[in-house]
Amino acid sequence: MSMIDTMSTTHVDPASLDLMFPQELISLEVSAQLPSDLQIRPLASTDYKRGYLDVLSVLTVVNDLGEEVWVNQFHAMRATPSAHFSIVVLDKASDKIVGIGTVFIHCKFLLGFGSVGHIEDIAVAKSHQRKKLGFLIVQALTHISESSGCYKTRLGCIDTTMPFYQKCGYAKMANEMVKYSPEHVNHASMKL
Amino acid sequence: MSMIDTMSTTHVDPASLDLMFPQELISLEVSAQLPSDLQIRPLASTDYKRGYLDVLSVLTVVNDLGEEVWVNQFHAMRATPSAHFSIVVLDKASDKIVGIGTVFIHCKFLLGFGSVGHIEDIAVAKSHQRKKLGFLIVQALTHISESSGCYKTRLGCIDTTMPFYQKCGYAKMANEMVKYSPEHVNHASMKL
Repeated sequence: MSMIDTMSTTHVDPASLDLMFPQELISLEVSAQLPSDLQIRPLASTDYKRGYLDVLSVLTVVNDLGEEVWVNQFHAMRATPSAHFSIVVLDKASDKIVGIGTVFIHCKFLLGFGSVGHIEDIAVAKSHQRKKLGFLIVQALTHISESSGCYKTRLGCIDTTMPFYQKCGYAKMANEMVKYSPEHVNHASMKL
Repeated sequence: MSMIDTMSTTHVDPASLDLMFPQELISLEVSAQLPSDLQIRPLASTDYKRGYLDVLSVLTVVNDLGEEVWVNQFHAMRATPSAHFSIVVLDKASDKIVGIGTVFIHCKFLLGFGSVGHIEDIAVAKSHQRKKLGFLIVQALTHISESSGCYKTRLGCIDTTMPFYQKCGYAKMANEMVKYSPEHVNHASMKL
């Protein structure tokens, strides 16, 4: 069987696949830059058979739990891909919030669908700063993350707040890289 | 009216609130460390009135869109807090995947519910490395993120891969801090 024959018999039309999201969201510009023997498309429910985990294992530890689990997870991720946990610290007397923080949990394909907690947007009212509320919020969010089964919790921080997060049990692992959308490049200077 | 009277009249029992998630996920250890005049609990649908955005504005630009929008967003975040987009690059001849990547989108309370795309787990099969597939996958994921309305897209990377991501249009913004759960501290050495 020639290469051409193989292509015609094994390649599946994306329109017939159960995709994670519409093909329309794939950049046409990117598709156009691919060599003609390659195709870019959303993940499909049958991609376990196409070696998804083999490729992932190039990067990291996969923990292959088998196809049935993989397909079930595909549908679960599509339906409810993550969970959002926002907490507040409330001043009872005034019934006003004085501290806030969020962790959202994202399920990955690696480590047997390991989850990661992402801590974001911790803030304490000026009236209640220097009372360790920030530290407690981080602990509470880390607890939510870990008790929800997350193997790690991550956050981004600038150099000046790094000692604070080190006290919270966090260590520098990598660099946080950011790209702003063309309409929002002005946000870069605000460090949003 | 004394402080005690004020507390008894304005403070709302968390059990009567419409919470984002069960109170049980708040660490008892953390709750115990709070001064008795403070309370820690999940975000409630009525917290707009309690100054949620005022606190957030300590940290960043809020873009207050009003209470009705805030409450609608609360329910939307609880129901479907984010969206998960995994893409693959497929080799047509073999019908095998040769490249993968994921971006998940997380909606924040700041910037009028601005969304951020988080790029994760990009991998290319050894057979297809040095063909710019990684670059294209990053472009495709960034496109999904930006065309879904994300004001920024972020990712974590180690020093050696930073030049690659700079070529993709990303710039270092901060440090990526990580804490592993007690059961998974061994993952730290694997940089998972």
